[in-house]
Amino acid sequence: MKVIVQKYGGTSLATPARIRSVAKRIVAARRAGCGIVVVVSAMGDTTEQLLGLARSVISQPPRRELDMLLTAGERVTMSLLSMAIQDLGSEAISFTGSQSGIITDTSHTNAHILEIRADRIRRELAKKRVVIVAGFQGVSVEREVTTLGRGGSDITAVALAISLGARECEIYTDVDGILTADPRVVPGARLLPEITYDEMLELAGLGARVLQSRSVELAARHHLTLRVRPSIGEGTGTVIRDETLERPEVRGVTHDEAIALLSLRRVPRSPRSLSQVVTSLANAGVAVRFFFHGAGAEKTTDLSFVVNESDLATARRVLASEARRIGAREVRASKGVGLVSVIGVGITRSPDMLARIFTALSRSRIHIGSVSTSETRVSCIIPQSAVGRAARALAREFDLMKPRTARSTSGGRGRKRASAPRE
Amino acid sequence: MKVIVQKYGGTSLATPARIRSVAKRIVAARRAGCGIVVVVSAMGDTTEQLLGLARSVISQPPRRELDMLLTAGERVTMSLLSMAIQDLGSEAISFTGSQSGIITDTSHTNAHILEIRADRIRRELAKKRVVIVAGFQGVSVEREVTTLGRGGSDITAVALAISLGARECEIYTDVDGILTADPRVVPGARLLPEITYDEMLELAGLGARVLQSRSVELAARHHLTLRVRPSIGEGTGTVIRDETLERPEVRGVTHDEAIALLSLRRVPRSPRSLSQVVTSLANAGVAVRFFFHGAGAEKTTDLSFVVNESDLATARRVLASEARRIGAREVRASKGVGLVSVIGVGITRSPDMLARIFTALSRSRIHIGSVSTSETRVSCIIPQSAVGRAARALAREFDLMKPRTARSTSGGRGRKRASAPRE
Repeated sequence: MKVIVQKYGGTSLATPARIRSVAKRIVAARRAGCGIVVVVSAMGDTTEQLLGLARSVISQPPRRELDMLLTAGERVTMSLLSMAIQDLGSEAISFTGSQSGIITDTSHTNAHILEIRADRIRRELAKKRVVIVAGFQGVSVEREVTTLGRGGSDITAVALAISLGARECEIYTDVDGILTADPRVVPGARLLPEITYDEMLELAGLGARVLQSRSVELAARHHLTLRVRPSIGEGTGTVIRDETLERPEVRGVTHDEAIALLSLRRVPRSPRSLSQVVTSLANAGVAVRFFFHGAGAEKTTDLSFVVNESDLATARRVLASEARRIGAREVRASKGVGLVSVIGVGITRSPDMLARIFTALSRSRIHIGSVSTSETRVSCIIPQSAVGRAARALAREFDLMKPRTARSTSGGRGRKRASAPRE
Repeated sequence: MKVIVQKYGGTSLATPARIRSVAKRIVAARRAGCGIVVVVSAMGDTTEQLLGLARSVISQPPRRELDMLLTAGERVTMSLLSMAIQDLGSEAISFTGSQSGIITDTSHTNAHILEIRADRIRRELAKKRVVIVAGFQGVSVEREVTTLGRGGSDITAVALAISLGARECEIYTDVDGILTADPRVVPGARLLPEITYDEMLELAGLGARVLQSRSVELAARHHLTLRVRPSIGEGTGTVIRDETLERPEVRGVTHDEAIALLSLRRVPRSPRSLSQVVTSLANAGVAVRFFFHGAGAEKTTDLSFVVNESDLATARRVLASEARRIGAREVRASKGVGLVSVIGVGITRSPDMLARIFTALSRSRIHIGSVSTSETRVSCIIPQSAVGRAARALAREFDLMKPRTARSTSGGRGRKRASAPRE
């Protein structure tokens, strides 16, 4: 029997009514003939409420007990969902992380899965039961209850799907799937029916918060097909899998307004300078989004770092001290900068790609401060105020908007304006 | 190291503030030198809330999933309490029923403990840690999560105390301990510093709802000393243990207004009649509080049954059919009757006890319909309207009231009346 793993987030399960609606979807999938394993998060904002309770008892909750506390959340959802499925006449059984055989290391609140002993789940699947599994939790090699950190339920779903040899892992969310751009900034952004793991990783890293990178990386390593789809309605969402074509194609545009750019000016060239500085920043808790250094044959170079705006003060302090140590001339920091990135497998191998990006931005009179590229990404530092315009310009240039027929809503808006009373 | 098991109910742990206050009490006990194991219930009315959630999903929640759901409650309390203790500088660790090694049968929602494999608790006690255990829950021999039914947390505490060879099991509640009578009916009722298991069982069975009979029976079988004490303040409560003195002493008066008396009249004497009728009543779900039959040498006798008023209709139907079968003349049922009982080890062996009871009641002009006795109890059927007066008369007769100094409040009430304006 082919197995499908479905994962539902807290919003999709926030009320008894939504739980019953999810149960209907599961029963329909079960009746279509597949074995179904369902991974659930805690209902709505239960996890935040439990955290609040803990903090009202102690300012720094000990992590072992925090795991014990937070895992109560999925326990409630999983048993209610199992009841709702049984109420629809299908057999179901719920399992905790421990009962599901999800064995982790001992890092409380941020554990990693070491192994899944899924024999109990397999036995229940063989009995044609829907198996509901508490996401986000496991049991450590020391028999302690652990949680998997941010995005933990996605990790549970992906790891179970791999372990069970599932055909697909479906991540149900409150969005339609992965879009070509943020629709709040690029109103015509369209749904991507398909995307590669690498592209998804670039999208996730740069702000498309639908799926945690950890889950995508795990799926990629095991060639597990992921599908991000809406928990309401019949949308088929976005399939994430290995690339099938070498043809460079732009999949999406991401942007970020809350970044800062720091530069160490006139750094004496040395093979170790860059890695030393990056290490110091990491030790201070600053996440370096990316960095670049000037090319050329001079004796000194400039090192530039893109960090989150919230890390600016810390980063500046670290770089000032590094500057003295390695003999750099000065530290410069720019706030008021933003980032726009174009994502697509192999796009930096395509000769005209950079030209098209630069032309599209300059046509919109947007000044490009710096450029950083990876295999699947071209990122431009631009003025913060131009970020929205830049994202829209690039989406138009690379055909990331909905087809014209689907854009009739904007036409409608126009008509509405036209019919307003004339002054 | 001597171990004490403490059990705290949901009311004592209903808020973060109360949890912190319980933590202080535990830390004080730990610093006094004993090993401490704490059994907790779910916070406040959490269990009822979870039940409500289940019923909003399905009208008859399946019992296996109900157990999974309800056990989330103690999980929250135990981890918060452990955090609060750690915040006070003591080491603590919380365990689920399963982690505590509480092995039960497979009767979901009403499981019985088969065995406690307490080695994990012992290891933590040896590390001088306070061990917090989720009450009311266990794991079945089939590795399923189970709950122990009503009063389940008390059972957990008593069973753990026995298994660990604890010196005492302390049940913390929102009352001062076991009183000689219901203070709502007998305002002068006083706290009993000490009581035997048998007396406590009679008190529990007749309406003193502080401790479930199941826990008292279990403690009695293993000669475990129980102590019922208040979770607020320094009261030492009531100690429940094996009897130490043969001297008959009246420990308390209980009463019940919601009973009914049924009689089968003129039953042909036969060794099997009574047991047949009692069995039929039990099969119909009627709890027979107690029964008695007329003595004497006639060929027929009367069988009388005391049942809860809510079971009257069912009991009458069963007895009508039994009457035909065994050839009894008729069935009589009386509503409007009540019960008052005097409790004390060996009181029925004391020659003047019945006389004192009858005299006290007749002095208050209360007609006694029937009398039933056990080793530790004398119960009188009286008119429902006389129940309160009877309880007060018997409490006075057997010196169950607070000493005179403590009764100044009633004196105060008298003075208040005297100082009222004279018409």
